[in-house]
Amino acid sequence: MAGRRANQVRIYDVAKVAGVSIATASKALNDTGRMADATRERVKQAAADLGFRPNAMARALISQRSFTIGLLTNDTYGRFTLPVMAGVSEALVDEGVSVFLCTIEDDPALGKVHVDAMLSKQVDGIIASGKRIDRRLPVDLSNLPVPVLYAFTDGPEEAVTLVSDDAQGSREAVEWLVGLGRRRIVHVTGPDTFASVQERAGAFRSVVGTAGRVLFGSWSEAWGHEAVGQLWNEGGDAPDAIFCGNDQIARGVVDALRERGIVVPGEVSVVGFDNWELMAAATRPPLTTVDMNLKELGREAGRLILALAEGAPVEPGIRKLPCQLVIRQSCGGGLRG
Amino acid sequence: MAGRRANQVRIYDVAKVAGVSIATASKALNDTGRMADATRERVKQAAADLGFRPNAMARALISQRSFTIGLLTNDTYGRFTLPVMAGVSEALVDEGVSVFLCTIEDDPALGKVHVDAMLSKQVDGIIASGKRIDRRLPVDLSNLPVPVLYAFTDGPEEAVTLVSDDAQGSREAVEWLVGLGRRRIVHVTGPDTFASVQERAGAFRSVVGTAGRVLFGSWSEAWGHEAVGQLWNEGGDAPDAIFCGNDQIARGVVDALRERGIVVPGEVSVVGFDNWELMAAATRPPLTTVDMNLKELGREAGRLILALAEGAPVEPGIRKLPCQLVIRQSCGGGLRG
Repeated sequence: MAGRRANQVRIYDVAKVAGVSIATASKALNDTGRMADATRERVKQAAADLGFRPNAMARALISQRSFTIGLLTNDTYGRFTLPVMAGVSEALVDEGVSVFLCTIEDDPALGKVHVDAMLSKQVDGIIASGKRIDRRLPVDLSNLPVPVLYAFTDGPEEAVTLVSDDAQGSREAVEWLVGLGRRRIVHVTGPDTFASVQERAGAFRSVVGTAGRVLFGSWSEAWGHEAVGQLWNEGGDAPDAIFCGNDQIARGVVDALRERGIVVPGEVSVVGFDNWELMAAATRPPLTTVDMNLKELGREAGRLILALAEGAPVEPGIRKLPCQLVIRQSCGGGLRG
Repeated sequence: MAGRRANQVRIYDVAKVAGVSIATASKALNDTGRMADATRERVKQAAADLGFRPNAMARALISQRSFTIGLLTNDTYGRFTLPVMAGVSEALVDEGVSVFLCTIEDDPALGKVHVDAMLSKQVDGIIASGKRIDRRLPVDLSNLPVPVLYAFTDGPEEAVTLVSDDAQGSREAVEWLVGLGRRRIVHVTGPDTFASVQERAGAFRSVVGTAGRVLFGSWSEAWGHEAVGQLWNEGGDAPDAIFCGNDQIARGVVDALRERGIVVPGEVSVVGFDNWELMAAATRPPLTTVDMNLKELGREAGRLILALAEGAPVEPGIRKLPCQLVIRQSCGGGLRG
């Protein structure tokens, strides 16, 4: 609190007494934003009681566009959020808009501290992002005084939500295997509690038929090894292709096959999911894999949050953005065309 | 710039005319901060020319501590910055302080946009971070109106800079190998243009002697494979231990040894560097590796930037924080005691 004179009433004090955020207090006093009349009245009463006098300068400071977008995420590893952030930044930097990332843990009270901090910094909008598309962030983002957009996390019905089209990406991958002549394709994937796992498995079966075999497990290399053990130890016709739920599983599968003396892609084709460069390119042979285009998803999020901040109409609902199959060497087939 | 009345003079306009940042203009008008007298005079002249009148409210808004710290980085992959950020957040959240991350690319002009955005949000301080300790961020952070601290990136002499003590971490790793009875230890590491590579190699030689063999290459699994090929194809006594410059190299080394039928750790011990969980734990056997304690480095950065923001005296200079050897199974030896 260095530098503040003791008796000066701040908007913070008004907000505190009224039990609202600083942003809401500002909007209430400026007769902007949407809120219950009772809330606006409570803020004005608190301001009057405290002797707070918003003046031209304060209003000017408040009414300016801030040229910052807040990005909230609980993906502390950054695996999904950082590509999204790169895309958002790319879309906005030419507009002079900066993106500030704030990571929140699973404690809603702490999450609220960060959201309030963003609002008090007068961000023009907030993009919520996460590590899976079927989970909400552990913080309430409804009724904020700025637009909120959801990118790679679950959002409420009335919001704009951007996700990757996992079904389309999965279909492309499996059709690619079919096009290469593979007929005994198995899907080795993550835990069946993930919506993305269900969606990818559904797309797999939509191509190979409802009898298509799916092995659910974990998102790990170890599971890839284990699945190969199961599939090759049970006898009968071994698979000639494995569509994996992510690149870590695919890497485990490829390593396990090599250690059994099975040639990839000569005898078995393997496809990953994520196009996690570090994992996909280091696999021997390098992985053909589905890229969710998270950077492009971020660019679209940036364009849309700016439109929302400027008051342009944006149709609410879920938008699925296309994935792209990235061809390397684990399937054979070379370049598509 | 929705919502702004056409003739209202903003601090932004004053800053623009004076050719300074918004933060500098604020400080100049409030007779706070440090800057050349000529700069302060130029700002005041611009304010007078434009008819800008800072008033009590504006000054109040400006003089408040903002309870936000800006984290600037050019580590767009997040490998090093996200653990630092987690530590900073952890140190500050109980103080009600939020951390905003802004990534900058290699364009200094764009970097300046983001720094100005942080300043105009009145962050209480800025932590600069990066992807290597011997490179500056591509943006000028001198003469800012808020304290700047450097964490895992190169800083100017008069600043507070936090780095990991790579030499100490490397010595511990190599002494661990020596303690296990290993006598033919080789160091396989990254490009010799990195200060961290030189420091780790120097520490390696300080333990095994100046004749200790160091193979410089790249930060990749492929280089680990290639180095094993070199070492085992040249004949003579093969190494009984390999100290690797990072976990990716170590993973390549372990895989290449296994494929040659050489038992890790039975015949050869392998140590990594980074303790990158995903890489270290998935290696077979899991890697014993040096952890740079980046999260603790972040915590210390958080504590120090807060002290600086509060005007507490902090001794400038480079502070090296200890690394820790994390024992898994790639060396043998089990738990230390």
